[in-house]
Amino acid sequence: MVAPLDHSTSKISFRVRFCETDLMGIVHHANYLAYFELGRVEWLRARGVTYAQWAQEGVHLPVVDVSLRYRNAARFDDELTLFTTLGELKRHSLRFDYRLMLRDALLTEGHTRLASVSETTVQGAKLHRIAPISDEMLARLRAAEV
Amino acid sequence: MVAPLDHSTSKISFRVRFCETDLMGIVHHANYLAYFELGRVEWLRARGVTYAQWAQEGVHLPVVDVSLRYRNAARFDDELTLFTTLGELKRHSLRFDYRLMLRDALLTEGHTRLASVSETTVQGAKLHRIAPISDEMLARLRAAEV
Amino acid sequence: MVAPLDHSTSKISFRVRFCETDLMGIVHHANYLAYFELGRVEWLRARGVTYAQWAQEGVHLPVVDVSLRYRNAARFDDELTLFTTLGELKRHSLRFDYRLMLRDALLTEGHTRLASVSETTVQGAKLHRIAPISDEMLARLRAAEV
Amino acid sequence: MVAPLDHSTSKISFRVRFCETDLMGIVHHANYLAYFELGRVEWLRARGVTYAQWAQEGVHLPVVDVSLRYRNAARFDDELTLFTTLGELKRHSLRFDYRLMLRDALLTEGHTRLASVSETTVQGAKLHRIAPISDEMLARLRAAEV
Repeated sequence: MVAPLDHSTSKISFRVRFCETDLMGIVHHANYLAYFELGRVEWLRARGVTYAQWAQEGVHLPVVDVSLRYRNAARFDDELTLFTTLGELKRHSLRFDYRLMLRDALLTEGHTRLASVSETTVQGAKLHRIAPISDEMLARLRAAEV
Repeated sequence: MVAPLDHSTSKISFRVRFCETDLMGIVHHANYLAYFELGRVEWLRARGVTYAQWAQEGVHLPVVDVSLRYRNAARFDDELTLFTTLGELKRHSLRFDYRLMLRDALLTEGHTRLASVSETTVQGAKLHRIAPISDEMLARLRAAEV
Repeated sequence: MVAPLDHSTSKISFRVRFCETDLMGIVHHANYLAYFELGRVEWLRARGVTYAQWAQEGVHLPVVDVSLRYRNAARFDDELTLFTTLGELKRHSLRFDYRLMLRDALLTEGHTRLASVSETTVQGAKLHRIAPISDEMLARLRAAEV
Repeated sequence: MVAPLDHSTSKISFRVRFCETDLMGIVHHANYLAYFELGRVEWLRARGVTYAQWAQEGVHLPVVDVSLRYRNAARFDDELTLFTTLGELKRHSLRFDYRLMLRDALLTEGHTRLASVSETTVQGAKLHRIAPISDEMLARLRAAEV
């Protein structure tokens, strides 16, 4: 199986943590969303964008929809490889696609669509409003890894 | 908004835990899968099926695919209502549909498809094989709340 | 075994979630800190204090130290009872003590010490400073359940 | 500040994940137990012991007591360094001590005591009994990094 490796794809590797397993002896299915999150944070970093910096400036990319297909289970200590691809880029949203592999085996694939929002704090409560992705950010998102 | 309340739907209420929030001040999106899991465990219990009992007997219902749409954010301490519906029942799999509400507002909707598997332990490693849902279990899944 | 039930103790019951287990088939040890958190949020609510309200007003009680002794394991779907006691109340900190039971068996005991802090947001970053507990709050913390 | 670096100490570095934060904008306190778990899994690996292998063979090291002191908060994307030290080694238990740093600042310190148990599966339920650490394992635990 050949994973996509064009310029809109980035790759990370990491090990399954003990605390991510459940009583079936496999990774609990909710944790794959945390893995995908890792994937897009590192995808952005590879293009010079620090998501933590954005968050401090009140720019967020909350998840608005998700799909996930589980094909094979990951287990404790497995060394996984995650391919993250920017699949769609619009003015107010973007979609990342994911393929999680254990060596040559596809474990999970899915996508997350993210909205672009800006945050304001009103009386201690954070409010988030849809806001266009800036031109500077769009340029970075279209670029290859730095 | 009227939530479905026919005999294949069950309802639970629970509060958002502090540890389920993230730095955006809202529930982290992965936690909704844990909420859906609560929903189907209680859906089963309402029909006389204790999932923990099944698990001890080596019968599991691992998640094989998921979709989730996030419409509004849940926040710490919100008292949420989750409607869980058996949407499809086959010999080797079933699908639950979910609608998570905060009072009259729909927060999240989605589904999980589960496979029916039986577990054997071989040299310390657990193996899971697709296995048909038993007739007794099918009857319970088709029944109304006890 | 007799659990303490004086006016500085409150009690909650809840079930272990599937996602809280690990590959040993028992509750992963980190989740007990989430249970203790539930315990103190409900302890406060029982005295008319909504922690979520405080948090919105920028008053927080971050954990500054923890001890935990695990005596017996909890398992999926166990219905647990948690006794939370205010063990110490100072001007800038307080300590809660916890006893987690499965019927008559003590599973876990521990404490968390919390600091009283106030939050300000400076350029998107939240800063927390030690701040005295208000007199009104002290009165509520010393009172019995409402 | 000089961290201990004798032969019973190992060191790992990792980044804080988004999903590990809470609404205070800092790492939720329960996640430090997951970090410590990472630390001891890698401590063992550095001495030629794969914890996942042990777990498959039915040897486990469940946590029996914990202490944690939080001095400074970690935040999303911080690159943390964790020093894990074997502080005590007995026939049926061992203690690891931890110091979590952000550059030169100590964030958290604590310990976990672990029991040595062997696992048997009886009618689907896993049972764990205290069992002495094998001589081979003791030798590895006393050795320096491989």
